[in-house]
Amino acid sequence: MNAPLRAKAYFDERATSEMQQHFRPIKRSVQESLAYTCRILAATGQEAGLAGQISARSECPGAYWTLRFGLGFDEATPDDFIEVGPDLETLTGQGMANPATRFHLWVYKERPDVNAIVHAHSPWVSCLAAARQPLVISQMDMTPFHDDCAFLADWPGVPIADQEGVLISEALGGKRSIILAHHGYLTTGGTIEEATYLSVYLERAARMQTRARVYGPLTPVADDLAKEAHDYLLKPSIVKGTFDYWCRQVDRDTPMAQPVGKSRPSTDAPA
Amino acid sequence: MNAPLRAKAYFDERATSEMQQHFRPIKRSVQESLAYTCRILAATGQEAGLAGQISARSECPGAYWTLRFGLGFDEATPDDFIEVGPDLETLTGQGMANPATRFHLWVYKERPDVNAIVHAHSPWVSCLAAARQPLVISQMDMTPFHDDCAFLADWPGVPIADQEGVLISEALGGKRSIILAHHGYLTTGGTIEEATYLSVYLERAARMQTRARVYGPLTPVADDLAKEAHDYLLKPSIVKGTFDYWCRQVDRDTPMAQPVGKSRPSTDAPA
Amino acid sequence: MNAPLRAKAYFDERATSEMQQHFRPIKRSVQESLAYTCRILAATGQEAGLAGQISARSECPGAYWTLRFGLGFDEATPDDFIEVGPDLETLTGQGMANPATRFHLWVYKERPDVNAIVHAHSPWVSCLAAARQPLVISQMDMTPFHDDCAFLADWPGVPIADQEGVLISEALGGKRSIILAHHGYLTTGGTIEEATYLSVYLERAARMQTRARVYGPLTPVADDLAKEAHDYLLKPSIVKGTFDYWCRQVDRDTPMAQPVGKSRPSTDAPA
Amino acid sequence: MNAPLRAKAYFDERATSEMQQHFRPIKRSVQESLAYTCRILAATGQEAGLAGQISARSECPGAYWTLRFGLGFDEATPDDFIEVGPDLETLTGQGMANPATRFHLWVYKERPDVNAIVHAHSPWVSCLAAARQPLVISQMDMTPFHDDCAFLADWPGVPIADQEGVLISEALGGKRSIILAHHGYLTTGGTIEEATYLSVYLERAARMQTRARVYGPLTPVADDLAKEAHDYLLKPSIVKGTFDYWCRQVDRDTPMAQPVGKSRPSTDAPA
Repeated sequence: MNAPLRAKAYFDERATSEMQQHFRPIKRSVQESLAYTCRILAATGQEAGLAGQISARSECPGAYWTLRFGLGFDEATPDDFIEVGPDLETLTGQGMANPATRFHLWVYKERPDVNAIVHAHSPWVSCLAAARQPLVISQMDMTPFHDDCAFLADWPGVPIADQEGVLISEALGGKRSIILAHHGYLTTGGTIEEATYLSVYLERAARMQTRARVYGPLTPVADDLAKEAHDYLLKPSIVKGTFDYWCRQVDRDTPMAQPVGKSRPSTDAPA
Repeated sequence: MNAPLRAKAYFDERATSEMQQHFRPIKRSVQESLAYTCRILAATGQEAGLAGQISARSECPGAYWTLRFGLGFDEATPDDFIEVGPDLETLTGQGMANPATRFHLWVYKERPDVNAIVHAHSPWVSCLAAARQPLVISQMDMTPFHDDCAFLADWPGVPIADQEGVLISEALGGKRSIILAHHGYLTTGGTIEEATYLSVYLERAARMQTRARVYGPLTPVADDLAKEAHDYLLKPSIVKGTFDYWCRQVDRDTPMAQPVGKSRPSTDAPA
Repeated sequence: MNAPLRAKAYFDERATSEMQQHFRPIKRSVQESLAYTCRILAATGQEAGLAGQISARSECPGAYWTLRFGLGFDEATPDDFIEVGPDLETLTGQGMANPATRFHLWVYKERPDVNAIVHAHSPWVSCLAAARQPLVISQMDMTPFHDDCAFLADWPGVPIADQEGVLISEALGGKRSIILAHHGYLTTGGTIEEATYLSVYLERAARMQTRARVYGPLTPVADDLAKEAHDYLLKPSIVKGTFDYWCRQVDRDTPMAQPVGKSRPSTDAPA
Repeated sequence: MNAPLRAKAYFDERATSEMQQHFRPIKRSVQESLAYTCRILAATGQEAGLAGQISARSECPGAYWTLRFGLGFDEATPDDFIEVGPDLETLTGQGMANPATRFHLWVYKERPDVNAIVHAHSPWVSCLAAARQPLVISQMDMTPFHDDCAFLADWPGVPIADQEGVLISEALGGKRSIILAHHGYLTTGGTIEEATYLSVYLERAARMQTRARVYGPLTPVADDLAKEAHDYLLKPSIVKGTFDYWCRQVDRDTPMAQPVGKSRPSTDAPA
């Protein structure tokens, strides 16, 4: 420790390498990962009635997997996901998609790098949305959104039509996340794990910013440090390691046993 | 997706039709629905000591069903509801009504379309009430209250007398909901499900507005979009589907088994 | 309902009479009631490390019952209470009193009508205390504190000496409750039930006021209505009925079975 | 009680002496104490993904014990701690340290009196950090930080390199705690119990201050009273007694049975 200080790049590379050695990521099917995502959102207070939406790009062009409409995040299991096609028609499984997931189609079309989308009206991001406030990157855990979280100031109304797809995908541009004024948020990712990780941290960021706002407007951190932390905190090992940790919490606290309750929406195909 | 964009009305009709196909509403008795409502309010943090009140119009003219006074929301079961008549006298069951439910009589009289009422002093609506603030419809999930939530600026004191019935029912007018300054709120509905759905979303709306207020006064969304969303979010399929989802949560988290605790208020008729 | 409106006094008397008929209060020993009070405070988020204090006047002059020092609210059982004398010496049971309960001696001496005291640094009253804010009675559930909650603007430091007893009992005067700036609160009552009821509602009042303050300074309700509601909400039937309800919650959620954990503070008398 | 009032010093000495008689501290290994600390942080809402860090000085010079990277606070058990050396290399156990604990090395080097460090980005301290606010000691439970909580206004970015060790240990100076702007906090102690106790109270202090700030800037308490309370509340009997209480809560609520979940990070040594 009395030697000259080593460059930060040395430590960054070492951390990357050591994490690759030590972390053994768990493999899960798309439907399993989506179900865990639902449970993670529920566990982090992103209650949403039937309004929340999680999807993952399907191998079938123009199609994606999403939760059958009528279920809440806290009751999702892998069997509850259906595959829907380019007009939101059900391709695999029974039931229907939430009509308000239509804009996901446009995001997948415009962003070939995106393989998963989380959309929610979570309590704290909804505060930002109601107040029409973009994020101010003022604390380390907010840096995954540095220069990577768009802001759509116009609310087009309930997003059940094609127009919202155009508007939202344009506003998102090339970023991973977006705050939708008067509405909620979208996080995306190359993997389900990444979209989920961003979802949890975006809700925390909105909570932190809103609570801290009582002291007055926040000062953003320096761009170069924010960018460095952004890249560090989005390292695949950290993203996947964190997701796996949250999955262990789900296994412990709300295991995906048999569905509970007598009144789940019908899984019958429409007559 | 390269075709010209279709009109929003097309999607609205399609959503309505598909939801009717896919959602199979659960049937419950009035007493069961009321008990679920109590549990849902408890689960959403609307703790109220003995002060909260939920009622449903009875088939007997001028009468309604309500929770026997002395019980909390989290312990209600279908057997705990009594039918009371036009002077709050007990008609069916044992025990007494909360004297502060007297004003329900007036609402049922003045509003033949109303079949259920939820009244509570929930934590967040109480903040609006203490600060004498009407809702500002600034986020999509608040739109069920667009042009449909009255505001009574005068507090008449503890509402145990006839006068409060006159005042509150007049202030409610033809709307579904009302915020009572210095007091709490009322949501009503053509069904128990609707009044409950509004109750949960009103508490969330008050929470969102109060937290977001730190950024300054909120900007309401455009009237036409708010109205469109209001009508969409109050579609019977969505209201009933959401209520059924919350009932599944109750079945899982606080099932209505035998009453717990040795000291429930007596169910004996007064001597 | 078309008859002329009846006077409010009629309804007030009727409510009192009917509640006396229908509510059958549960009898508990002093130690049982104190243990329930501890559990109720824990259940309402009044976590306090070892700092919270609950006491009840003993039949022995100048003495009171209190929780053995070293235990938290959530683990209290009837066997954990000790009787201490006029110099805080242990009279009955084993262990010692929290040295910071010394000022209770003075309150019991100065206020013969007081038979129970709750003192806590609960999260929300602590906000009022830190900001040196008295309550503003701006919502119905706050009215039990109308003209009945003193405010001590001076903080004398850790209250382990006699001086604090003089200062706090003087500031309390003839009221039921007091907010202690930079410190916490005291609620008192003719019964343990009353002090507990006030404790729960005071914490809620502080939460409501602090959250609502974002809209600006609050407007108090009219004195005459506040007084009327104060008296109504402190009716013994309502106080006792509410306490009994909370006890049922304790029985369900944190029953007083055998103490859990291997490391409870010794109950041995000092060597 | 009619005798002249005794000096506060008398009561202070008496409290110290009586607590030593009555409290029988529980003995635990370093790894057990660290695991309890993790659980206590989890129980007090200091959720942190994989980012939180707890360590204790090892008997081996320049080394310390810390949680194996990849685990969350709520799942830690005594077996999950590893010993790492002066370049963060693993000495005992399997797995790696969180690379962001590097700065702990510097604190242990500069502060021979420090034997334990808690670092977290807890929700409420993160608000202070985002808003660049030092604590204002305005309530009794905040006094353990009186003249004992430093403030680092510069954020050096993700703390994985040596530079952060220099910066943070310099800013900490001789104090027990520090708030790191745009980042989080550090509490230290001569014992694990003390660092943990400070951690829990710092998060509460930040919560109280931020909520209370809606009333305007806070007024600190008088220095002499703050110092007196600081010393009282840091008495070893109170610190240890409180820690033991929290451990009983852990034993009851989240006992350290077998690890739950199938996907814990590998404990294999890197190949």
